[in-house]
Amino acid sequence: MNSNMEKPYVVGIDIGGTNTAFGIVDARGTIVASSSIKTGAFEEAEEYVDEVCKKLLPLIVANGGTDKIKGIGIGAPNGNYYSGTIEFAANLPWKGIVPLAAMFEERLGIPTALTNDANAAAIGEMTYGAARGMKDFIMITLGTGVGSGIVINGQMVYGHDGFAGELGHVIMRRENGRLCGCGRKGCLETYCSATGVARTAREFLAARTEESLLRAIPAESITSKDVYDAAVKGDKLAQDIFDYTGDILGEALADFIAFSSPEAIILFGGLAKSGEYIFKPIQRSIDKNVLPVFKGKTKLLMSELKDADAAVLGASALGWELKDLK
Amino acid sequence: MNSNMEKPYVVGIDIGGTNTAFGIVDARGTIVASSSIKTGAFEEAEEYVDEVCKKLLPLIVANGGTDKIKGIGIGAPNGNYYSGTIEFAANLPWKGIVPLAAMFEERLGIPTALTNDANAAAIGEMTYGAARGMKDFIMITLGTGVGSGIVINGQMVYGHDGFAGELGHVIMRRENGRLCGCGRKGCLETYCSATGVARTAREFLAARTEESLLRAIPAESITSKDVYDAAVKGDKLAQDIFDYTGDILGEALADFIAFSSPEAIILFGGLAKSGEYIFKPIQRSIDKNVLPVFKGKTKLLMSELKDADAAVLGASALGWELKDLK
Repeated sequence: MNSNMEKPYVVGIDIGGTNTAFGIVDARGTIVASSSIKTGAFEEAEEYVDEVCKKLLPLIVANGGTDKIKGIGIGAPNGNYYSGTIEFAANLPWKGIVPLAAMFEERLGIPTALTNDANAAAIGEMTYGAARGMKDFIMITLGTGVGSGIVINGQMVYGHDGFAGELGHVIMRRENGRLCGCGRKGCLETYCSATGVARTAREFLAARTEESLLRAIPAESITSKDVYDAAVKGDKLAQDIFDYTGDILGEALADFIAFSSPEAIILFGGLAKSGEYIFKPIQRSIDKNVLPVFKGKTKLLMSELKDADAAVLGASALGWELKDLK
Repeated sequence: MNSNMEKPYVVGIDIGGTNTAFGIVDARGTIVASSSIKTGAFEEAEEYVDEVCKKLLPLIVANGGTDKIKGIGIGAPNGNYYSGTIEFAANLPWKGIVPLAAMFEERLGIPTALTNDANAAAIGEMTYGAARGMKDFIMITLGTGVGSGIVINGQMVYGHDGFAGELGHVIMRRENGRLCGCGRKGCLETYCSATGVARTAREFLAARTEESLLRAIPAESITSKDVYDAAVKGDKLAQDIFDYTGDILGEALADFIAFSSPEAIILFGGLAKSGEYIFKPIQRSIDKNVLPVFKGKTKLLMSELKDADAAVLGASALGWELKDLK
């Protein structure tokens, strides 16, 4: 009997600024039980962990008890894999350095690991999704920001400090670049995140005079979804916004390919679901910008994990890699 | 008796466009015997390998015979680690794909591996030099071009196709970038290689009117060494050239740090020997451009391998990783 048969489940906990979702997951990536709580309702990390455990434990018991759980994986902003801590996460209520993995491990007696959400997404994709069997790929998450998880030689890249893979913050425009939340200018995520797309929409609408379906929406409330809906209806300006976004993202991906020459780059997040409207310009831009030796070698793929489940699945996948507590 | 004691030596072969240098190296990085031949003198790879073996074998015999050699490492332009082949190397006389590692293995009966020269430099630095004990670092070679070797989790990054780590070809200037030998524009190596520095010198001399020691040299024959010599003598324009070079290299390194968060970046090559004239502006530019979470974390180091020995040492280091032939 191998240990996965003895311990057929892992637990995934996805900590977001608003909600914390968690679930019990089997080896095929099926979520057999799940629940959630409001992250922001707990000013103290101790209370927060208590509450997650209070709702999680009955689910574990209903599925055979803690002996059946191989490990707990946590995906969280600013999560440091090496230390199992969350460090100075701007969007979470707890200040400073919180030893979250150890807190869960103590309460539940189950080995627990933690990493940032984009790394969790990459591990999830490798375990259950489009990257199954791949040893070298890059996951790019296109959401409010641009996150990334890099896998090389079958291993997650954490860097010497646990924070590697901040590809949303490579500089794409060194002159007159857009101001980024990180305090610098021209970062990839100011152009290619969902908010970056909305920003491009406002810029294009202000700079150009042509008609567009987007003009019916107050400029400040335009979202990347609005741009997608307009593009689908044949709106030229909306399609130009995607072309512009894809150009810059393709330029960035071409540089990433020069770094690690991955078998695939996998896109995840709402923007990635804009399908060919965003994939075509990205692919065109990669082909135009990539070093000849890499041309046509790296696949551009969409995540195969369902949006609603992806975060919990990604976090849970980390649990399979854990060794039993001594 | 461990296998390094039974087999106390490795062989390093560095294949350059002009010369091929090779030597027998012990575990401390001492070259106990060495020799060289002209690479360009052999139009057929078979003849070339025969000649290397003819000169190498007596050295091996004099040091205890092939039984004492753990492995042979080869550093070569366009070397593919996975296949042990050199593929379409523009500066070597042999066309197409040459299975060089297998050719040496057949003739000498010693396990042989091959990689590109910058990767070999990184492995050499990890085995004998400034990166001893490091698991995450990036080697940047500043020569005629800009090469790189990336080590993550203690392993060389080869990518899915064996060609990862072409950091000399990330795009630093997307508008009006300098034309690169690769056919694209704005690559890092058009600015920060030794030839890039000479190019900057010619640009600055043409665009500016001030006096400079460099004006005594015909523009077309200025080298990065001339710029260094002038900078040492207090020449302002020469120092500006280094500042400009360091600015761009620091911008690039800041992006590389966002990728793999290395413990150190190690510079190698003639330009790196310009010491503080180039290190100060690079460090200043990294500090200015790096994402706050990485600030002050990555060391900027100079290679600790002697120039004359580095290529052979680097190639040889690959030999320690090899397993005995069956």
